[in-house]
Amino acid sequence: MNKESLSILGGGLIGSLWAIYLRKLGYPVQVFDKRPDTSQAKEIEGGRSINMALSFRGLKSLEKVGLKDKILPLAIPMYGREVHDEKGSTQFMPYGQANQAIYSISRGKFNLLLSEEASHLGATFHFRHKFKSIDFTSSQLTFETPTGLQKTEGGIVFGADGAYSALRLAMQKQARFNLTQEYISHGYKELSIPPLANGDFAMSPNALHIWPRGSFMLIALPNPDHSFTCTLFLPFEGEGQSFSQLHDEKSLLQFFQTYFKDALPLMPQLTLEFFTNPTSSLINISCYPWAKGKSLLLGDASHAMVPFYGQGMNSGFEDCFELHAAIEGAKPDQWELIFQEFQQTRKPNTDAMCTLAMENFVEMRNHVADPRFVLRKKIESLLHEAYPTRWVPLYTMVTFSDLPYQEAYRRGKLQEKVMDEVMADPLIAQNWKQLDLEGILTKLQQLDRSR
Amino acid sequence: MNKESLSILGGGLIGSLWAIYLRKLGYPVQVFDKRPDTSQAKEIEGGRSINMALSFRGLKSLEKVGLKDKILPLAIPMYGREVHDEKGSTQFMPYGQANQAIYSISRGKFNLLLSEEASHLGATFHFRHKFKSIDFTSSQLTFETPTGLQKTEGGIVFGADGAYSALRLAMQKQARFNLTQEYISHGYKELSIPPLANGDFAMSPNALHIWPRGSFMLIALPNPDHSFTCTLFLPFEGEGQSFSQLHDEKSLLQFFQTYFKDALPLMPQLTLEFFTNPTSSLINISCYPWAKGKSLLLGDASHAMVPFYGQGMNSGFEDCFELHAAIEGAKPDQWELIFQEFQQTRKPNTDAMCTLAMENFVEMRNHVADPRFVLRKKIESLLHEAYPTRWVPLYTMVTFSDLPYQEAYRRGKLQEKVMDEVMADPLIAQNWKQLDLEGILTKLQQLDRSR
Repeated sequence: MNKESLSILGGGLIGSLWAIYLRKLGYPVQVFDKRPDTSQAKEIEGGRSINMALSFRGLKSLEKVGLKDKILPLAIPMYGREVHDEKGSTQFMPYGQANQAIYSISRGKFNLLLSEEASHLGATFHFRHKFKSIDFTSSQLTFETPTGLQKTEGGIVFGADGAYSALRLAMQKQARFNLTQEYISHGYKELSIPPLANGDFAMSPNALHIWPRGSFMLIALPNPDHSFTCTLFLPFEGEGQSFSQLHDEKSLLQFFQTYFKDALPLMPQLTLEFFTNPTSSLINISCYPWAKGKSLLLGDASHAMVPFYGQGMNSGFEDCFELHAAIEGAKPDQWELIFQEFQQTRKPNTDAMCTLAMENFVEMRNHVADPRFVLRKKIESLLHEAYPTRWVPLYTMVTFSDLPYQEAYRRGKLQEKVMDEVMADPLIAQNWKQLDLEGILTKLQQLDRSR
Repeated sequence: MNKESLSILGGGLIGSLWAIYLRKLGYPVQVFDKRPDTSQAKEIEGGRSINMALSFRGLKSLEKVGLKDKILPLAIPMYGREVHDEKGSTQFMPYGQANQAIYSISRGKFNLLLSEEASHLGATFHFRHKFKSIDFTSSQLTFETPTGLQKTEGGIVFGADGAYSALRLAMQKQARFNLTQEYISHGYKELSIPPLANGDFAMSPNALHIWPRGSFMLIALPNPDHSFTCTLFLPFEGEGQSFSQLHDEKSLLQFFQTYFKDALPLMPQLTLEFFTNPTSSLINISCYPWAKGKSLLLGDASHAMVPFYGQGMNSGFEDCFELHAAIEGAKPDQWELIFQEFQQTRKPNTDAMCTLAMENFVEMRNHVADPRFVLRKKIESLLHEAYPTRWVPLYTMVTFSDLPYQEAYRRGKLQEKVMDEVMADPLIAQNWKQLDLEGILTKLQQLDRSR
């Protein structure tokens, strides 16, 4: 076997998993990362990580390379949302059926496990290598390293270097590269809820906790050490509630006392964390083409999305799964054809997911607390129970299946229309248990056919 | 007077005009351009220029600094579109009233005149200075020059460095910069129609000639030397007509013989020009914010648009006019406040113009040849004659007035709705001279009020 050399820019979650996939296919793999050796670093995320929620697509992609069972022990299953109102009352809303969960996992250990696995399989990691430039014709790569500029033949080059991808920036300077980078008005800050004095979780562990407050929200995800990683999403600026208004301890505590009364006593480090941790931005990236010659963007580099559907990492892992399938379905080493095929098929799916992620922000911070929203979810559950394959709630299609995102989006919009009609009945709150489910399904089918 | 030093990146049309404005305000001005000295260069555009169509907003901005009368002798008035069908018949469609024209002008001489004027007023031009980087805190600029890297204190920095702005790229790497860069599927190529053997124009000189062919088109604009600069707009790729299909002289001549039969005999250099001149891309840029600290983007750098409304240069000149007004309306040297004010007011207007430019592409290459479109224009002319201020065709608002683009867009959409209703009458082709104009105007007013 005489395989061409392959390079991956970025040794994060997607880059490491893709290195594992490529090693399993027998390719020599070099991984370049600007950070110091991840196995030496105590804290990879440094106070700016939203915990990941691993779900079906991510798990499927890990399972393909035999890693699902190694990863799950690092994660905590969350079976639903636990919604906290302003008085401190909570309500649990399952994500799907009783056995369906998404898995809270923190980036640091997960990344380490994946990069160690890739090393173990023979991938070579080069840390402190900051990608500077590429010659798209020869695939020569230039890196900034502690010992000066280094040049290397990249061969086939994968850009798994994240939302601020340097490879994408190099592509952007080439002819006819389409790009949208869009920041939302909200930023986020990492906070935490430590375990209780007796070592227990301070809240129910098997849920994603949400404090939805209309224009902002707090969430908390459980960790194996019985702490929670919290994230506050809040507008950067503005006269209403915003980060710019929280300028001292007094305004901070008053804000938490007003809006997150039940969380405040659980956050002894709040003031320190709030004024130490950075306020980070949220970006949405859409670009095309993803491929330029022998180079290809993967994961956040090609489709960074806002984190409100928990699909950023999962979609990046699914990129690996799909690209692997495209390689297996093609003649060996026909990389440019494989990349064309991959980007054409995959792009409409990640576009749909980016749109859903943006739309879910409104749902999470707002509707989730609305009794009509809760009722709507209940009716959809009834429909799903009665017609398990013909009516599948959107969240379930996205999170607990591997239906292409584009198709999930399409079906989701049809179901939304039908549900709008159902909810228009002024007596729906009384009648919902006696609905003509068969009739609702017929409407869905008619709508689907009429398109 | 102790004025802070000001720098302009880019000595093109917008940069040179802005230097003139600033000199008239008394500021010391440095202009940096990566190109060789424009006064030495024979050919600035190098076979990739679409002739400019100077119209009301551009002329107004030139007049403000006393240059309108110097510029007009370089230009040829075009009073309407001359539409060429596939058989070679032509039809003239006026742009506005009898005395209203847009002015064809070629970039090279125009640019030279403006930069010489700026020099004459005391602006210092630094050619062969390629902008490399900026420190947004200190405003220190770094340039690549023939004698190596040079650093200079930029003071207040204006990025008039065009659609591929290097200052914008530097801003893009800063936090929370929103950007969309979007290439359309069509490219363009510059061609020419020389004067006849007797020195005359080969076609009627006071018109913008169009050969609209649905998915592509050819246009021609007159020059003072009695030639025409032609531009072919055609998809890059595709199985229909596209640049990729025109790979040799035979396919090229056959294409022109089929679609531009009357133009072909007027283009003796066609084959040479077609295979020598580059095929250029068309980009749309939308970004925000335009200002970062003491730096500001102007013209194409902040809002490059496709050329189909002839407003790219005009909108950039109007940027100068508006920014000048903002400076005059503010306390001296409150640059950051001035920039905030300017970008907030100006951005919705250039957004509207970018959208109109994209929409006009469909109109130019397609509808312009449609008898119903012609009829529609005639009815709008009647309305405009009857109610000169209350019904103004969209093209007139954009091209022959300085109504804010956003307001022109809004009114244009309302008028479009009303005209859709008027045109829905199956007998309109017979009835159009007996229309109830008063009734149509009332509909427009009702629609406007109901919003």
